[in-house]
Amino acid sequence: MSTWIDNRWYVAGWDFEVDRAPLARTICGEPVMLYRRLDRQIVAMQDACPHRLLPLSMGIKEGDSIRCRYHGLLIGSDGRAEEMPLRNDPVNRSICVKTYPVVERHRYVWIWIGAAEKADPALIPDFWPCSSDGWTFDGGYNAIACDYRLLIDNLMDLTHETYVHEGSIGQRELMEAPITTHAEGDEIVVTRWMPGIEAPPFWRGALGKDGLVDRWQICRFLPPSNVIIDVGVAPVGAGASVESHDQGVRGFVIDAITPESETSTHYFWGMARNFDVHDTGFTARFKQQQGGVFAEDVEVLEAQQRSILRNPGSKLRAYAIDQGGVKARLVIERLRKAEAAELA
Amino acid sequence: MSTWIDNRWYVAGWDFEVDRAPLARTICGEPVMLYRRLDRQIVAMQDACPHRLLPLSMGIKEGDSIRCRYHGLLIGSDGRAEEMPLRNDPVNRSICVKTYPVVERHRYVWIWIGAAEKADPALIPDFWPCSSDGWTFDGGYNAIACDYRLLIDNLMDLTHETYVHEGSIGQRELMEAPITTHAEGDEIVVTRWMPGIEAPPFWRGALGKDGLVDRWQICRFLPPSNVIIDVGVAPVGAGASVESHDQGVRGFVIDAITPESETSTHYFWGMARNFDVHDTGFTARFKQQQGGVFAEDVEVLEAQQRSILRNPGSKLRAYAIDQGGVKARLVIERLRKAEAAELA
Amino acid sequence: MSTWIDNRWYVAGWDFEVDRAPLARTICGEPVMLYRRLDRQIVAMQDACPHRLLPLSMGIKEGDSIRCRYHGLLIGSDGRAEEMPLRNDPVNRSICVKTYPVVERHRYVWIWIGAAEKADPALIPDFWPCSSDGWTFDGGYNAIACDYRLLIDNLMDLTHETYVHEGSIGQRELMEAPITTHAEGDEIVVTRWMPGIEAPPFWRGALGKDGLVDRWQICRFLPPSNVIIDVGVAPVGAGASVESHDQGVRGFVIDAITPESETSTHYFWGMARNFDVHDTGFTARFKQQQGGVFAEDVEVLEAQQRSILRNPGSKLRAYAIDQGGVKARLVIERLRKAEAAELA
Repeated sequence: MSTWIDNRWYVAGWDFEVDRAPLARTICGEPVMLYRRLDRQIVAMQDACPHRLLPLSMGIKEGDSIRCRYHGLLIGSDGRAEEMPLRNDPVNRSICVKTYPVVERHRYVWIWIGAAEKADPALIPDFWPCSSDGWTFDGGYNAIACDYRLLIDNLMDLTHETYVHEGSIGQRELMEAPITTHAEGDEIVVTRWMPGIEAPPFWRGALGKDGLVDRWQICRFLPPSNVIIDVGVAPVGAGASVESHDQGVRGFVIDAITPESETSTHYFWGMARNFDVHDTGFTARFKQQQGGVFAEDVEVLEAQQRSILRNPGSKLRAYAIDQGGVKARLVIERLRKAEAAELA
Repeated sequence: MSTWIDNRWYVAGWDFEVDRAPLARTICGEPVMLYRRLDRQIVAMQDACPHRLLPLSMGIKEGDSIRCRYHGLLIGSDGRAEEMPLRNDPVNRSICVKTYPVVERHRYVWIWIGAAEKADPALIPDFWPCSSDGWTFDGGYNAIACDYRLLIDNLMDLTHETYVHEGSIGQRELMEAPITTHAEGDEIVVTRWMPGIEAPPFWRGALGKDGLVDRWQICRFLPPSNVIIDVGVAPVGAGASVESHDQGVRGFVIDAITPESETSTHYFWGMARNFDVHDTGFTARFKQQQGGVFAEDVEVLEAQQRSILRNPGSKLRAYAIDQGGVKARLVIERLRKAEAAELA
Repeated sequence: MSTWIDNRWYVAGWDFEVDRAPLARTICGEPVMLYRRLDRQIVAMQDACPHRLLPLSMGIKEGDSIRCRYHGLLIGSDGRAEEMPLRNDPVNRSICVKTYPVVERHRYVWIWIGAAEKADPALIPDFWPCSSDGWTFDGGYNAIACDYRLLIDNLMDLTHETYVHEGSIGQRELMEAPITTHAEGDEIVVTRWMPGIEAPPFWRGALGKDGLVDRWQICRFLPPSNVIIDVGVAPVGAGASVESHDQGVRGFVIDAITPESETSTHYFWGMARNFDVHDTGFTARFKQQQGGVFAEDVEVLEAQQRSILRNPGSKLRAYAIDQGGVKARLVIERLRKAEAAELA
C-alpha cells in the first residue's frame, strides 16, 4: 500500500509547463507523459509505448498523435494505435496505452491516477484565489527528495520559518502568537491571528500606508496533499476578523504537492493576491525571493528524509506546534484506509 | 536462473583488445581477467586472487604468470599457485583460481563460462565472413546498459532504422519491403529482398556503377546471442537470388553480443565485406560512421531498459515486424530450459 | 547480527577533531553527533532531533546546548529537552535523545555504542605510548570503503608492504624474516625480529649512527578492532630483545579502527615515538608520507571489498602469513558470540 490516496486529483504541472511537446513526469509512482492537442486540450498517458515500452515522451508528435521513436507505432490522443510499425499492416485497435483523466483548473493541470471511473472533477480542491476576478496568481516548481508528507508537515506549521528561514522571512514574533487548529470536514485549518501589531515591511508596502494592523496566517490542508495559506493585513479598526478579512491586502500562498515516489515530491508553489494585480514586477520579485526561501526548505526536508532512513529505530514525534500536520496526516490515513476497505 | 544460456561460447573481446597486460571484463555475471601468454595463447581466469580476492587484473605480470599485488601470491597461466606470499613457504599446489576455456576465432576471443567439460569449439558460431579469403573484417566495442535480449530484438528487426537512425542510415523504403522469417535449426533468419530498386549512395559507391539493383538484408540469429546481417546489392539481371548473391558487392554486419549482467551488455560490432578489401580508409570511415549510428541505438536501448524497470506492470508485446526477435527469444528459452532440465 | 562487537569502546575521533561545533560521524551504524561543552567535556548523542529527526549536527549551539535548526527544540548536553519549539510551551523533560558514554584518552575520543551500563573505562585499550612522558604522538584520519576486518587483516600482516607499498616503504627483506604469532589473553601478537641487519635509511637517521642493528616489528591486535605496531632498531650488542628493546629508537604505529557500516571504516592512524620528540618537522613529514602510503592501502582495500561483493561464491583463504589476522578474527568472533549468548 502506497503512502498516498490513490483516487484523488493531483497536480501534474503548471498550465504553462504543458504544451505541444511531450512532458514526462512520474506521478504517484507512475511514469506519465502529457501534451496539448491542437485544440489545447491536455492528454495524459502512460509514458511507455505499448509495443516495446520505449518512453513515448521520446517520440515524434504528428498532429494530435505521437509516433514512437523506436519502431514508429502511432498512438492517437485517445491512447489507441493508429498505425502499426509497418504502415501497411492492418491496425490492431485493441493496442492501447493507459490514459489518465486530466482537468485544467486554477492554472494547474490535474491528473487522476486511480480508478478512472471515480474521477469526478468536483473533487478538485477549491483553489478559488488562483482563478477569480480581482486576483492574480503565479508561481514555480521544485523537485524535493522527500516523502510528500514531510512537506505538508512543514507548511502546516509556520514556526519553522524562525529557524529555517532565519536569514530571509523568519520572524521571532511568529512563534509568540498563539495558534488554533480545527477541522472543516476533511480540511484542517491552523489559524494565527495577530491583532494590532506593527506591519512587517512586505505588508506595509502592499498596504501602502503606516499604522498598526491586524495580521493573519491561516493554513488550510486540502486532501489529498495541498496546503493554501491565507495571509495579509488590514488596518486596525477596519473590521477585519478571522472569518472575514478583505478590508486590507490579502494573498494566498498556494502549495500544490504531488508524490513522485515514496521519497520524492513535486512541489508547485505560488502566490495569489488581490493587490497590485497588474504589477508584473511584483510577481517576478516574489518568484525570485521564493526561489531562495524554498532552497532553505529543500535543504532541511532532504536532510530530514535522509535522517529518517538512517535512523529506522526512531519515530517522528508531535508537540503542540504540530497539531496541524498531525491532523492532516490523520485525514490522509483515514481516507487511505477507507479506500483500501472499499477495494477489499 | 539467469536470462542467458550458460553452456555456450560468448565473445569476451576483440583479438586486438587482449594482450600481455590483463584485461578485466565481467562475462555472464562472472568477473574475468584475460591476457596473452608469451606464445600468444590467451588465458582467462576468475578476476579474484584465491587468497584474499583482490582482482588479479591489478597484479603484476611475471612471464606467463601473474603476481597478486596485495600479498604476492604467484599464479601460473593454468590458474595454479606457483609461489606463496612468503616465497620460502612450500607451495600448496591445490591453491588455484578458476580458469575458463578460451578459443580465438574469427577475430574474436571466445570464452566458455559454463561447465568446462562441455566446451566444444565446434559450438562456436560460424562467422565465416570474418575469417575467409577475399574478405576483410574490422569493428569496435560498446557497453550498453540493457538486457542483451533487447539488443537482439533491435538487430532482428531493421525497421527501427527508420526512426532511430532517421538522421543517419534510416530509409522509409525499408519499411515497405516485405520480410519473411524462418528457422534453420537453432538459427532464425529474417529476409528482406528488394528487387530492381535504385541503389542507395553507399551501395552505388561500392558497386562502382549506376543502374537498378537487387538489394538484400538477411538477418540471422545464431545462439546464444549473436546476429549477423548479410547485406549488399547486385545489378539487376546478374542472377542474384536469396539463396545465392555473390554477383555484386556483399557485406556482413557482425553483431557479437555478450551479457555482462541481467541489465548490461557487451556489444562487439563490425563489418566484413568482399569489396574494397584493401581500402583501409573505407574501414576507418565505416567505424567512424557506426560510432554515431550506435550512439543512437544506445540511447534508445538504455531508455527502453529504464522504462521496463519503471513499468513493472507492463509487458513487451510483439507485432508482425517482431517475428525475428520473438523467434530468437523462443530459441534462447528452449535452450535454457533444456540446459536446466539436464541439470535437474 | 552485526560484524562487530557492540559492547566495546571505539574511537569516534581525534581529540583535535572534536570542538564546540558539532561533528557528525556514523559509528557502528549509528549516526552520532559530538561536540565539546564549555568545560571541554565531550558530549555524544544520536544525530537526530527527537522531534522530527533533522540531524542535530545541522543545529545551532547555544552555550552547552544545541537548538534544532528546523523547529528550534533546545537540547541540553544531557540529551534532554530544555525548550520546546514554542518557547512558552511547558518543557516536557521526558523528551530526550540518546546519549553515549564518551571518554577522552590517549589523544582519542572513545565512544560506547552498546549498553551504556557496561561502559567501563577500564576496557579502553591501553595505547600507553600515545600518552606517556618521553613520547610524542600525532596522526590523521582516512575513511575507507571496506569491512573493518579487512583493515585489521592488512595491518596484522606487514608482508603486504612489499607489493602494495612497492614504491614507498616496501622492502623485499621483510618477507624473508620469519614471524611468530601468539595470543596474550584477547590480544594477538605477531613478532618479526631481525637481528644484526643493516638499518634502513629511516631508522639509521633516527638512531643517528651507522652500524648493524637489531630491528623489530611487533604487531599487536587489541579488541575490538585496533592494531598497534612496535617498531624500531637498537645497535647490535646493546642488549635489545623481543621482551625489552628500549636501547635504541622506538616507535608505535597506532591504528585505531572503527566500523562505520558493514562495508565502510573509519581509520585513525598515527605514530608515537620516543626519539626526536620535539621535532615537529619530523611529525609533519611522517604525516605527509603516510598520506601517500595510506592512499596505496585504500586503493587495495576498496578494490578487495568490491571484489568480495562481486564474487559471492568465493571465500577469503588464509595461508601461513595470515596467522595474525586469522587469530584476530577468531577473537572477534568469540567475543561477539559471548555477547550474543549473554543477551539470549
